[in-house]
Order: sequence, then C-alpha cells, then structure tokens
Amino acid sequence: MSQWLTNPVEEMSDTHLRQAQNHQNQLTKPQGSLGVLEAIAVTIAALQKTQAPCVNQAQVLIYAADHGIAQENVSAFPQAVTAEMVKNFSTGGAAICVLAHQHGLPLQVINMGLVSELPNLLAVEKHIIAKGTNSFLQHQAMSAEQLMQTCNIAKNKVDQAKSDGCELLIPGEMGIANTTSATALVCALEGIEPEVITGAGTGLDDEGVTHKINIIKASLKYHKKQLITPLKTLQFLGGFEIAALTATYIRCAQQGVIALVDGFICSVAALFAIKINPQCKNWLIFSHQSAEQGHKMVLERIGAQPLLEFNMRLGEASGAALTYPLIRSACLLHNDMASFASADVSEKLT
Amino acid sequence: MSQWLTNPVEEMSDTHLRQAQNHQNQLTKPQGSLGVLEAIAVTIAALQKTQAPCVNQAQVLIYAADHGIAQENVSAFPQAVTAEMVKNFSTGGAAICVLAHQHGLPLQVINMGLVSELPNLLAVEKHIIAKGTNSFLQHQAMSAEQLMQTCNIAKNKVDQAKSDGCELLIPGEMGIANTTSATALVCALEGIEPEVITGAGTGLDDEGVTHKINIIKASLKYHKKQLITPLKTLQFLGGFEIAALTATYIRCAQQGVIALVDGFICSVAALFAIKINPQCKNWLIFSHQSAEQGHKMVLERIGAQPLLEFNMRLGEASGAALTYPLIRSACLLHNDMASFASADVSEKLT
Repeated sequence: MSQWLTNPVEEMSDTHLRQAQNHQNQLTKPQGSLGVLEAIAVTIAALQKTQAPCVNQAQVLIYAADHGIAQENVSAFPQAVTAEMVKNFSTGGAAICVLAHQHGLPLQVINMGLVSELPNLLAVEKHIIAKGTNSFLQHQAMSAEQLMQTCNIAKNKVDQAKSDGCELLIPGEMGIANTTSATALVCALEGIEPEVITGAGTGLDDEGVTHKINIIKASLKYHKKQLITPLKTLQFLGGFEIAALTATYIRCAQQGVIALVDGFICSVAALFAIKINPQCKNWLIFSHQSAEQGHKMVLERIGAQPLLEFNMRLGEASGAALTYPLIRSACLLHNDMASFASADVSEKLT
Repeated sequence: MSQWLTNPVEEMSDTHLRQAQNHQNQLTKPQGSLGVLEAIAVTIAALQKTQAPCVNQAQVLIYAADHGIAQENVSAFPQAVTAEMVKNFSTGGAAICVLAHQHGLPLQVINMGLVSELPNLLAVEKHIIAKGTNSFLQHQAMSAEQLMQTCNIAKNKVDQAKSDGCELLIPGEMGIANTTSATALVCALEGIEPEVITGAGTGLDDEGVTHKINIIKASLKYHKKQLITPLKTLQFLGGFEIAALTATYIRCAQQGVIALVDGFICSVAALFAIKINPQCKNWLIFSHQSAEQGHKMVLERIGAQPLLEFNMRLGEASGAALTYPLIRSACLLHNDMASFASADVSEKLT
C-alpha cells in the first residue's frame, strides 16, 4: 500500500530561517545583493535546520519506462529510442551523462519497464513493472497495484539515497511518448483543454500536434468518470516513470532531501506530488522553464519560479543538472564568505 | 596612444558555424532541444574556429578604482570600502573569491588607483593611475592621457591572459560610487534622462536616489559640450575601472578571447566598447540581468539576451562567474555527447 504518500514531510525551521537571514546580512556585500542566491541559501538552511546549508552530496536518478500510448503515433521518435537511450545513459553518451560528469554527480537509471528487453547494463537497475504501460486511449495505463508498486520502488530509491547521505536529488525521466501522458495528466487534474497546453514534445510538426491533441481529448473523454483523485488520474493516464517521480518528490520531502525539478514531465509529476501532499513543495527547487508549450502554465499553477529559461526540452534531468552548480554556489557563498567584522570592511552608512 | 581600440577584431568563421550546427544535429537528442546551450556552443565554435569549442582556460580579472564623485554622497557605503574590499579579494572572503574557488578560476585584482594606500597584497597588482578620479561634478574625471594609460593597462592584461592560454575572461569591477559614473556615462552616450535609469546602487534610499539623479543631471549639464565621442565621454564621466573594462572587451575580441560580461557597470563598459568597435560584440556573452534599475535598458540597447536574471547587484564579476559553469556545460555537451550513429540510437521519424 502507499498510504505513506500522505505522511507528513520534514518541516522547515523558522529559527534557522531567521539565523540564516541574519548571517546573510553580515556577509561582505550590500544586503540582498546576491538576490536569488540568498533566498536559496536561506531556504536550504531552514530546510536542513543548519547554519551551513550544503548540497555537496547529490545524485542523478533517471526513471525510464515505455508508454502504450506511443502506439498512437504521438511521438516524433520511434518507441525503440527509450531502450536505446537507456543504453546511451549506461555508456555515457547522453546529455545527462556529460552534465553529471562535469559536476561529479553519480548517475543511476531505473528501468521500470520497456517494450524491448535489455541486458544487464552498468548503472542501470531493473525494477520492471511491465513491458510499458497500456495505451490509455481505451485502457487504464496501469492497475492500482502497479501504481503502488511504482511508488514503492521510488520510495526505496529515495530511502537508499538518504541513507547514502544524499542532500539533493536530481530526478529525471526517459520514455518515448511521455509528454502525451504528462499533458493528459495535467489536463485532467487542472481541467485544462488539451488545445491550450499540448506541445511538440521531441519535435512533432503542426499536424502531429493536432493528432496528439485529439488522442488526449479522446482519452480524457473515455476515462472521465474514473479521474476522480490525483492517484486515480496517475493510474489511468500516467506512466511508470511519471508516477515514480511523483512518489520521489513526496518521499524526498519526508526524508529531508531537496529535490531539483527538471522540465515539463517532472513539473507535472511535481504538481501531482503537491496535490497529494501539499507540504512537499517546500523541498522542491524548480530548475528551468522549458520550451515545451505547457510548462509555463504548470509552473504557474504550482506557483514556482524557475531558476532559468534556456528553451531546453530534452528531459533526462538535463535542465536540473545544468543548474546544480548554481544551487551549490548559493550554499558556498553562504558558508564561505567573510563577514564585515571578520574582514574589517565598513558597513553601510546609516 | 590608443588607436589600437579601433583595430579589427577576430572574425567568426561561417564554415565552423555550419559545421558546429551540423554536429549538434547529430547528437543523441531532439534537434534544438538543448536550446540556449546549443547556440552558445555553436557560437563559440565559430569564434574559436574549431570543432571542439572550449572555455576550460578561464580567469577572473577585477579592476578596482576610486571615484571622485563619491565625495558627493552618492553611495550607501563609505569610500574606504573600495580598499577594504580589495583586501577582502586578496584574503579570499569576497563573493567572487568563493565563486572563483568553486570553479577553479584564477583571480587577479588590478589596483588602478584608490584613495587609500594599500600594502602589497597577494593576487593584487598595482597599476596606479591616480588616487582615484576627480569628481566629475565640476572637473573631468581623468585627463586624456590617464584614459590612454588606463586602456593600455587593460590591453596588456588581456595580452598576458591570451599568452597564458586564456580562452574566456571574466572581467569585473570594484569602486565605491561607480554606479553613479556608469549611469552618467550611459545617459550621456544614449541621451537618456537620469530619472529613467538611475538606481539604488549598493542600497540608497529614495532620497539618496533623488540626490544621485541631481548630481548626474548637474554633471551632464556642466560637461555637455565635451561629451562628443564615446572616448571623450569616458574621459569626462568615467572611472579607471570602467574605462579598463571597455578596453578589455575590445582587446579580448581582437585577441580571440571570449569575455563574459557581468552586471550593470560591466554592461555600460560593454556598450562603450561596442560603440567604439562594433564588431567586438560577437565576443561578449552577457551573463545576467541585475537588479540595478538601468541594467535592463542597457542590455536592450546592446541587443543582448542575458543568460539569467537572479536579481543580483553585487558587481565584482560575481554574476558572470556564477554563469561560467553554464558556458562550460554548453561546450562539454557539444564535444562529449554521443551521436545517433555512434550510440546506435534511432533518429526522428520523417
């Protein structure tokens, strides 16, 4: 069972928040002049209940899964690419591998169920639920039991990361057709019309986007009566990797691990996490606003301010990993700058 | 003499631009899905005339100088802070020191003339023009000869960096009251009214900003007939560190070194560089949009898209150094990702 999803999360400490803010005001710079970096450091100090916020222990965790809805020609790439990219993650050729290597971040991939069978691969762990989800055009994507299994795999991964000392987790996803699933999910949850929010994914043309909209509309109509809770919605329209992300964000918050949220798919999963367990939002840092059409709207619904807008739309945690050094800068500045007193620098005139 | 300022800059290679774009399209990701990172990598490849764009060899160079206009109470901090912060740079306590250390960047400070005498300090080189500029309220900030001296010091620093193998330079500034000088400069150059663009600098209150506006208006009126060229304007209203930045951006472009532009002061210096030698713009990457009131307008006049907007307003190259790993990511992704062919990943369906 997954009753743990609604268990309380780790709380922020107001005392540490105030201490951290005071500390920032002692550092050799005009007050507030580090802008967003100050806010990040102060928030992390309050979350970690420490005077020395730290994200040095961080790791990348990519959930990969296939989607039955890919049969409906909703992606610009063939479904085989999910498995091919899992191999590419293993051999170090994907964008996320390059970024993880740049920042010294361990990278682990969880194979949650692909259409193709894969051999054992370095850095890829098998936790296979099924050979992909069912097409949600006329079936439930997964059973209630499969959803619970998925959430519990994510829980175990976060618990393992926590016991390994992880301070910041960078979850990501790979799954051909998963923008179709994510778009259907957010439409169902928020009552948004698919026309408003459906984007090109990995690169559909206009005709392809129109087809994708029609598939999503038909699916929403077909399942309408079932989509009564966030969990039911995840079950009927989700993917294993998306449900795993939702569970990951919640579990991170329960374990006191900061999660850096990637692009559109991850933000949809985060929106579901917040609906299921609102307090988990404190533990999420939104890394970037992507080029995918619906992402801006999802971020607005969450009330999130992404760190940057680079017009990326790759997924696989790439945008989140890109911003990791910025979070690290915020912490290092907080901890390592001199104070006016220690450096004998004059303070602001009154 | 500084006739070198208008010498031609290193040109971009269209051939390498096309090659780099083709290469990007072979990498295992949907075309264009790395957004701004692709544009950065392709531009650097074209600038460096290479198939492997690289900014691993980078360094921070901070010009520090005092401003006569500080006598007019236009800053929230006392003038002694310029010298105190130079010491803080030397002992590693300033924000830029923390960021430079995080990214393994050597940091050098050039003392171009402070009101206070400083002993010899680690990482600080003395190239003193005078004990600060004159107050430009009723004097020229510097003589024509001092301006030339300043530009030539910058030229030598860039030439040294180039011969040391520097691929990317991160110039910055320190000088109490230098937002007043920068604001006066941009008003004179662009015909902008001081009310429109004058900001709080290190933290003036509303009354302080009004006073700063009045000082700038009076100065512009006093020197009106002299402000006939960008160089004359720099001479009458500039600071040693601002003129040095202008010369640095131009010299970087002539030497084929990319320059990462910091906040308001640096962007004003970059605007002057572009007015003096328009082609140097190709070699400038604008790192961030600061909280300083006029910065957005200066970036718009340049036609620059800053990488991020973090509401920073510290100077000392801090915003630029913050974004350095993003530029590095762009290059590493370009060079180290697998191609569809090498990783045996299926391409987009046609």
